[in-house]
Amino acid sequence: MPSTSIAACPIPATCNWQPFGLPRRPANRTVVFRGFLEDTDQLKFVIDSRSEKAEQIEHQPWGEACWYFPNTREQFRIAGYLTLVRSSSADSEREIARQKSWQELSDAARVQFAWPHPGETRAEDAGAFSPPPPDAVSPLPNFCLLLLDPVQVDRLELRGEPQNRWLYRRDSSQSWSTLAINP
Amino acid sequence: MPSTSIAACPIPATCNWQPFGLPRRPANRTVVFRGFLEDTDQLKFVIDSRSEKAEQIEHQPWGEACWYFPNTREQFRIAGYLTLVRSSSADSEREIARQKSWQELSDAARVQFAWPHPGETRAEDAGAFSPPPPDAVSPLPNFCLLLLDPVQVDRLELRGEPQNRWLYRRDSSQSWSTLAINP
Repeated sequence: MPSTSIAACPIPATCNWQPFGLPRRPANRTVVFRGFLEDTDQLKFVIDSRSEKAEQIEHQPWGEACWYFPNTREQFRIAGYLTLVRSSSADSEREIARQKSWQELSDAARVQFAWPHPGETRAEDAGAFSPPPPDAVSPLPNFCLLLLDPVQVDRLELRGEPQNRWLYRRDSSQSWSTLAINP
Repeated sequence: MPSTSIAACPIPATCNWQPFGLPRRPANRTVVFRGFLEDTDQLKFVIDSRSEKAEQIEHQPWGEACWYFPNTREQFRIAGYLTLVRSSSADSEREIARQKSWQELSDAARVQFAWPHPGETRAEDAGAFSPPPPDAVSPLPNFCLLLLDPVQVDRLELRGEPQNRWLYRRDSSQSWSTLAINP
Protein backbone atom coordinates (compact mmCIF):
# COMPACT_ATOMS: atom_id res chain seq x y z
CA MET A 1 0.00 0.00 0.00
CA PRO A 2 1.34 3.44 -0.86
CA SER A 3 1.06 4.62 2.69
CA THR A 4 4.40 6.21 3.32
CA SER A 5 3.19 9.76 2.89
CA ILE A 6 0.44 9.20 5.38
CA ALA A 7 2.36 7.31 7.98
CA ALA A 8 5.25 9.73 7.81
CA CYS A 9 3.12 12.83 7.94
CA PRO A 10 3.26 14.40 11.37
CA ILE A 11 0.30 16.74 10.82
CA PRO A 12 -3.28 15.65 11.09
CA ALA A 13 -3.90 12.56 13.09
CA THR A 14 -7.56 12.95 12.22
CA CYS A 15 -9.45 11.71 9.25
CA ASN A 16 -13.02 11.53 8.06
CA TRP A 17 -14.70 8.28 7.33
CA GLN A 18 -18.26 7.32 6.96
CA PRO A 19 -20.12 4.12 7.31
CA PHE A 20 -23.84 4.11 6.78
CA GLY A 21 -25.97 6.45 8.79
CA LEU A 22 -29.68 5.82 8.78
CA PRO A 23 -30.73 3.41 6.07
CA ARG A 24 -29.53 4.91 2.79
CA ARG A 25 -28.05 7.90 4.58
CA PRO A 26 -24.30 7.97 4.79
CA ALA A 27 -22.78 9.66 7.83
CA ASN A 28 -19.45 11.34 8.32
CA ARG A 29 -17.25 12.18 11.29
CA THR A 30 -13.74 13.05 12.30
CA VAL A 31 -11.77 10.35 14.06
CA VAL A 32 -8.21 10.08 15.23
CA PHE A 33 -5.90 7.84 13.22
CA ARG A 34 -4.14 5.41 15.59
CA GLY A 35 -1.51 4.02 13.23
CA PHE A 36 -1.40 0.75 11.33
CA LEU A 37 -2.19 -2.71 12.66
CA GLU A 38 1.17 -4.43 13.05
CA ASP A 39 2.58 -5.93 9.83
CA THR A 40 -0.52 -4.98 7.84
CA ASP A 41 -1.89 -2.08 5.80
CA GLN A 42 -4.94 -1.82 8.04
CA LEU A 43 -5.61 1.57 9.61
CA LYS A 44 -6.58 1.64 13.26
CA PHE A 45 -9.18 3.82 14.94
CA VAL A 46 -10.91 3.43 18.31
CA ILE A 47 -14.61 3.92 18.94
CA ASP A 48 -17.23 3.42 21.62
CA SER A 49 -19.65 0.54 21.04
CA ARG A 50 -22.42 2.74 22.50
CA SER A 51 -22.06 5.33 19.71
CA GLU A 52 -24.15 5.32 16.55
CA LYS A 53 -21.06 4.55 14.51
CA ALA A 54 -20.71 1.03 15.90
CA GLU A 55 -24.14 -0.05 14.74
CA GLN A 56 -23.69 1.68 11.40
CA ILE A 57 -20.50 -0.23 10.77
CA GLU A 58 -22.05 -3.60 11.40
CA HIS A 59 -24.81 -2.77 8.92
CA GLN A 60 -22.38 -1.51 6.33
CA PRO A 61 -18.80 -2.68 6.78
CA TRP A 62 -17.40 -0.35 4.13
CA GLY A 63 -15.84 3.02 4.74
CA GLU A 64 -13.74 5.70 3.21
CA ALA A 65 -11.23 7.82 5.05
CA CYS A 66 -10.48 11.21 3.61
CA TRP A 67 -7.41 13.15 4.61
CA TYR A 68 -6.35 16.56 3.48
CA PHE A 69 -2.87 17.74 4.31
CA PRO A 70 -2.85 21.53 4.05
CA ASN A 71 0.95 21.85 4.05
CA THR A 72 1.52 19.59 1.06
CA ARG A 73 -1.95 20.26 -0.42
CA GLU A 74 -2.56 16.54 -0.91
CA GLN A 75 -5.84 14.67 -0.51
CA PHE A 76 -5.97 10.94 0.16
CA ARG A 77 -9.21 9.01 -0.07
CA ILE A 78 -8.73 5.52 1.32
CA ALA A 79 -11.63 3.13 0.78
CA GLY A 80 -11.96 -0.35 2.15
CA TYR A 81 -13.56 -2.89 4.41
CA LEU A 82 -14.26 -2.11 8.06
CA THR A 83 -13.87 -4.57 10.92
CA LEU A 84 -15.15 -3.72 14.36
CA VAL A 85 -13.28 -5.56 17.10
CA ARG A 86 -15.57 -5.70 20.13
CA SER A 87 -14.73 -7.01 23.57
CA SER A 88 -16.52 -10.22 22.61
CA SER A 89 -14.21 -10.85 19.64
CA ALA A 90 -13.33 -14.49 19.29
CA ASP A 91 -10.21 -13.63 17.29
CA SER A 92 -7.39 -13.66 19.82
CA GLU A 93 -4.96 -11.68 17.65
CA ARG A 94 -7.49 -8.95 17.17
CA GLU A 95 -8.38 -9.00 20.85
CA ILE A 96 -4.72 -8.50 21.68
CA ALA A 97 -4.57 -5.58 19.23
CA ARG A 98 -7.67 -4.13 20.90
CA GLN A 99 -6.05 -4.35 24.32
CA LYS A 100 -2.85 -2.79 23.03
CA SER A 101 -4.77 0.12 21.53
CA TRP A 102 -6.43 0.71 24.89
CA GLN A 103 -3.08 0.69 26.65
CA GLU A 104 -1.65 3.18 24.17
CA LEU A 105 -4.40 5.75 24.81
CA SER A 106 -3.81 8.70 27.11
CA ASP A 107 -5.67 8.76 30.44
CA ALA A 108 -7.81 11.59 29.07
CA ALA A 109 -8.83 9.49 26.07
CA ARG A 110 -9.50 6.37 28.15
CA VAL A 111 -11.74 8.09 30.67
CA GLN A 112 -14.14 9.11 27.87
CA PHE A 113 -15.19 5.48 27.60
CA ALA A 114 -16.44 5.75 31.21
CA TRP A 115 -18.53 8.84 30.44
CA PRO A 116 -22.34 8.68 30.08
CA HIS A 117 -23.86 7.22 26.91
CA PRO A 118 -22.72 9.34 23.92
CA GLY A 119 -25.50 11.11 22.00
CA GLU A 120 -28.09 10.87 24.76
CA THR A 121 -29.52 13.94 26.50
CA ARG A 122 -26.78 15.60 28.46
CA ALA A 123 -26.29 14.08 31.91
CA GLU A 124 -27.10 16.72 34.50
CA ASP A 125 -24.82 15.31 37.13
CA ALA A 126 -21.48 16.98 36.41
CA GLY A 127 -19.77 14.18 38.34
CA ALA A 128 -20.82 11.79 35.57
CA PHE A 129 -17.96 13.22 33.54
CA SER A 130 -15.41 12.80 36.31
CA PRO A 131 -15.52 9.06 36.94
CA PRO A 132 -12.53 7.33 38.48
CA PRO A 133 -9.90 6.62 35.80
CA PRO A 134 -10.52 3.20 34.27
CA ASP A 135 -7.91 0.47 34.47
CA ALA A 136 -5.06 1.28 32.10
CA VAL A 137 -4.46 -2.36 31.11
CA SER A 138 -7.86 -4.02 30.60
CA PRO A 139 -10.19 -2.15 28.25
CA LEU A 140 -13.73 -1.28 29.25
CA PRO A 141 -16.26 -3.55 27.48
CA ASN A 142 -17.57 -0.69 25.29
CA PHE A 143 -14.10 0.03 23.91
CA CYS A 144 -13.75 -1.15 20.30
CA LEU A 145 -10.93 -1.21 17.83
CA LEU A 146 -11.95 -0.32 14.28
CA LEU A 147 -9.87 -1.54 11.34
CA LEU A 148 -10.00 -0.19 7.80
CA ASP A 149 -8.51 -2.60 5.29
CA PRO A 150 -7.89 -0.49 2.18
CA VAL A 151 -8.59 -1.71 -1.34
CA GLN A 152 -8.41 1.61 -3.16
CA VAL A 153 -6.51 4.85 -2.60
CA ASP A 154 -7.24 7.97 -4.62
CA ARG A 155 -4.44 10.49 -4.20
CA LEU A 156 -4.76 14.06 -5.42
CA GLU A 157 -1.84 16.45 -5.39
CA LEU A 158 -3.12 19.99 -5.74
CA ARG A 159 0.38 21.39 -5.96
CA GLY A 160 1.84 20.93 -9.43
CA GLU A 161 1.26 22.22 -12.90
CA PRO A 162 -1.36 20.94 -13.43
CA GLN A 163 -2.54 18.93 -10.41
CA ASN A 164 -1.58 15.25 -10.24
CA ARG A 165 -3.81 12.35 -9.32
CA TRP A 166 -3.26 8.63 -8.93
CA LEU A 167 -5.48 5.67 -8.28
CA TYR A 168 -3.94 2.76 -6.36
CA ARG A 169 -5.89 -0.50 -6.33
CA ARG A 170 -5.34 -3.77 -4.55
CA ASP A 171 -6.22 -6.87 -6.55
CA SER A 172 -7.26 -10.30 -5.34
CA SER A 173 -3.60 -11.39 -5.14
CA GLN A 174 -3.00 -8.49 -2.74
CA SER A 175 -0.80 -6.64 -5.24
CA TRP A 176 -1.19 -2.90 -5.64
CA SER A 177 -1.39 -1.29 -9.07
CA THR A 178 -0.96 2.41 -9.83
CA LEU A 179 -2.79 4.38 -12.49
CA ALA A 180 -2.23 8.08 -13.25
CA ILE A 181 -5.61 9.67 -13.82
CA ASN A 182 -6.92 13.12 -14.67
CA PRO A 183 -7.38 15.36 -11.65
CA MET B 1 -29.46 27.59 11.54
CA PRO B 2 -26.62 27.91 14.03
CA SER B 3 -24.13 28.73 11.34
CA THR B 4 -22.34 31.76 12.74
CA SER B 5 -19.27 29.89 13.87
CA ILE B 6 -18.87 28.36 10.47
CA ALA B 7 -19.51 31.39 8.36
CA ALA B 8 -17.29 33.52 10.55
CA CYS B 9 -14.44 31.07 10.69
CA PRO B 10 -11.61 32.17 8.42
CA ILE B 11 -9.75 28.84 8.54
CA PRO B 12 -10.76 25.85 6.53
CA ALA B 13 -12.71 26.55 3.41
CA THR B 14 -12.82 22.82 2.92
CA CYS B 15 -15.20 20.24 4.22
CA ASN B 16 -15.89 16.59 3.75
CA TRP B 17 -19.19 15.33 2.54
CA GLN B 18 -20.28 12.08 1.07
CA PRO B 19 -23.11 11.02 -1.12
CA PHE B 20 -23.35 7.43 -2.19
CA GLY B 21 -20.41 5.78 -3.83
CA LEU B 22 -21.01 2.52 -5.55
CA PRO B 23 -24.33 0.98 -4.58
CA ARG B 24 -24.29 0.68 -0.80
CA ARG B 25 -20.82 2.16 -0.63
CA PRO B 26 -20.64 5.69 0.68
CA ALA B 27 -17.87 7.89 -0.65
CA ASN B 28 -16.08 10.82 0.88
CA ARG B 29 -14.09 13.76 -0.43
CA THR B 30 -12.83 17.20 0.42
CA VAL B 31 -14.59 20.10 -1.26
CA VAL B 32 -14.32 23.85 -0.91
CA PHE B 33 -17.15 25.60 0.90
CA ARG B 34 -18.40 28.51 -1.26
CA GLY B 35 -20.59 30.31 1.29
CA PHE B 36 -24.34 30.27 1.75
CA LEU B 37 -26.99 30.63 -0.93
CA GLU B 38 -28.37 34.15 -0.53
CA ASP B 39 -31.02 34.52 2.20
CA THR B 40 -30.98 30.80 2.98
CA ASP B 41 -29.14 28.32 5.20
CA GLN B 42 -28.06 26.28 2.17
CA LEU B 43 -24.33 25.65 1.83
CA LYS B 44 -22.82 26.06 -1.64
CA PHE B 45 -20.20 23.91 -3.31
CA VAL B 46 -19.24 23.62 -6.96
CA ILE B 47 -18.59 20.38 -8.81
CA ASP B 48 -18.00 19.04 -12.30
CA SER B 49 -20.92 17.10 -13.82
CA ARG B 50 -18.37 14.73 -15.37
CA SER B 51 -17.09 13.59 -11.96
CA GLU B 52 -18.40 10.53 -10.11
CA LYS B 53 -19.88 12.77 -7.43
CA ALA B 54 -22.55 14.19 -9.73
CA GLU B 55 -24.05 10.81 -10.52
CA GLN B 56 -23.79 9.71 -6.90
CA ILE B 57 -25.75 12.73 -5.75
CA GLU B 58 -28.60 12.11 -8.14
CA HIS B 59 -28.86 8.56 -6.85
CA GLN B 60 -28.71 9.62 -3.23
CA PRO B 61 -29.54 13.27 -2.58
CA TRP B 62 -28.44 13.19 1.04
CA GLY B 63 -25.08 14.26 2.35
CA GLU B 64 -23.20 15.17 5.44
CA ALA B 65 -20.49 17.78 5.66
CA CYS B 66 -17.94 17.38 8.39
CA TRP B 67 -15.70 20.23 9.49
CA TYR B 68 -13.00 20.20 12.08
CA PHE B 69 -11.55 23.51 13.20
CA PRO B 70 -8.18 22.79 14.80
CA ASN B 71 -7.85 26.23 16.44
CA THR B 72 -11.12 26.04 18.36
CA ARG B 73 -11.13 22.21 18.48
CA GLU B 74 -14.74 22.11 17.28
CA GLN B 75 -16.32 19.56 14.98
CA PHE B 76 -19.48 20.33 13.00
CA ARG B 77 -21.41 17.59 11.21
CA ILE B 78 -24.04 19.13 8.97
CA ALA B 79 -26.50 16.68 7.43
CA GLY B 80 -29.16 17.48 4.88
CA TYR B 81 -30.59 17.25 1.41
CA LEU B 82 -28.45 17.79 -1.65
CA THR B 83 -29.56 19.60 -4.80
CA LEU B 84 -27.44 19.52 -7.90
CA VAL B 85 -27.99 22.56 -10.13
CA ARG B 86 -26.95 21.55 -13.64
CA SER B 87 -26.78 23.82 -16.71
CA SER B 88 -30.13 22.37 -17.75
CA SER B 89 -31.87 23.53 -14.55
CA ALA B 90 -35.36 24.85 -15.22
CA ASP B 91 -35.30 26.83 -11.97
CA SER B 92 -34.28 30.34 -13.00
CA GLU B 93 -33.27 31.45 -9.49
CA ARG B 94 -31.00 28.48 -9.10
CA GLU B 95 -29.59 28.99 -12.59
CA ILE B 96 -28.74 32.58 -11.63
CA ALA B 97 -27.05 31.32 -8.46
CA ARG B 98 -25.10 28.83 -10.59
CA GLN B 99 -23.92 31.60 -12.91
CA LYS B 100 -22.95 33.80 -9.98
CA SER B 101 -20.92 30.99 -8.43
CA TRP B 102 -19.06 30.59 -11.71
CA GLN B 103 -18.32 34.30 -11.87
CA GLU B 104 -17.00 34.28 -8.30
CA LEU B 105 -14.43 31.55 -9.03
CA SER B 106 -10.80 32.43 -9.66
CA ASP B 107 -9.45 31.93 -13.21
CA ALA B 108 -7.42 28.98 -11.88
CA ALA B 109 -10.57 27.31 -10.52
CA ARG B 110 -12.61 27.99 -13.66
CA VAL B 111 -10.05 26.54 -16.06
CA GLN B 112 -10.27 23.16 -14.29
CA PHE B 113 -13.72 22.71 -15.79
CA ALA B 114 -12.06 22.83 -19.23
CA TRP B 115 -9.55 20.11 -18.31
CA PRO B 116 -9.87 16.52 -19.57
CA HIS B 117 -12.50 14.22 -18.05
CA PRO B 118 -11.74 13.82 -14.31
CA GLY B 119 -10.91 10.29 -13.16
CA GLU B 120 -10.07 8.95 -16.62
CA THR B 121 -6.59 7.74 -17.54
CA ARG B 122 -4.23 10.68 -17.48
CA ALA B 123 -4.25 12.64 -20.75
CA GLU B 124 -0.80 12.38 -22.31
CA ASP B 125 -1.01 15.68 -24.14
CA ALA B 126 0.27 18.19 -21.58
CA GLY B 127 -1.51 20.93 -23.54
CA ALA B 128 -4.81 19.36 -22.47
CA PHE B 129 -4.27 21.00 -19.11
CA SER B 130 -3.54 24.43 -20.58
CA PRO B 131 -6.71 25.20 -22.51
CA PRO B 132 -7.65 28.81 -23.23
CA PRO B 133 -9.33 30.35 -20.16
CA PRO B 134 -13.09 29.81 -20.36
CA ASP B 135 -15.47 32.75 -20.49
CA ALA B 136 -15.66 34.37 -17.03
CA VAL B 137 -19.37 35.18 -17.28
CA SER B 138 -21.14 32.16 -18.79
CA PRO B 139 -20.38 28.86 -17.08
CA LEU B 140 -19.24 25.82 -19.02
CA PRO B 141 -22.05 23.24 -19.35
CA ASN B 142 -20.34 20.76 -17.01
CA PHE B 143 -20.18 23.33 -14.20
CA CYS B 144 -22.70 22.52 -11.44
CA LEU B 145 -23.68 24.23 -8.24
CA LEU B 146 -24.30 21.86 -5.35
CA LEU B 147 -26.55 22.90 -2.48
CA LEU B 148 -26.72 21.27 0.94
CA ASP B 149 -29.91 22.15 2.81
CA PRO B 150 -29.21 21.24 6.44
CA VAL B 151 -31.73 19.53 8.68
CA GLN B 152 -29.40 18.48 11.48
CA VAL B 153 -26.19 19.86 12.93
CA ASP B 154 -24.12 17.93 15.45
CA ARG B 155 -21.62 20.23 17.13
CA LEU B 156 -18.84 18.89 19.31
CA GLU B 157 -16.59 21.18 21.30
CA LEU B 158 -13.50 19.27 22.38
CA ARG B 159 -12.27 22.15 24.47
CA GLY B 160 -14.06 22.29 27.81
CA GLU B 161 -14.29 20.27 30.97
CA PRO B 162 -15.73 17.94 29.90
CA GLN B 163 -16.36 18.29 26.17
CA ASN B 164 -19.63 19.87 25.07
CA ARG B 165 -21.94 18.63 22.36
CA TRP B 166 -25.21 19.93 20.95
CA LEU B 167 -27.69 18.63 18.43
CA TYR B 168 -29.56 21.24 16.38
CA ARG B 169 -32.56 20.01 14.41
CA ARG B 170 -34.86 21.71 11.94
CA ASP B 171 -38.50 20.70 12.16
CA SER B 172 -41.17 20.78 9.48
CA SER B 173 -42.06 24.39 10.36
CA GLN B 174 -38.41 25.30 9.62
CA SER B 175 -37.68 26.10 13.28
CA TRP B 176 -34.45 24.98 14.83
CA SER B 177 -34.32 23.28 18.22
CA THR B 178 -31.23 22.77 20.36
CA LEU B 179 -30.50 19.81 22.58
CA ALA B 180 -27.42 19.41 24.78
CA ILE B 181 -26.23 15.82 24.46
CA ASN B 182 -23.45 13.73 25.92
CA PRO B 183 -20.18 14.01 23.99
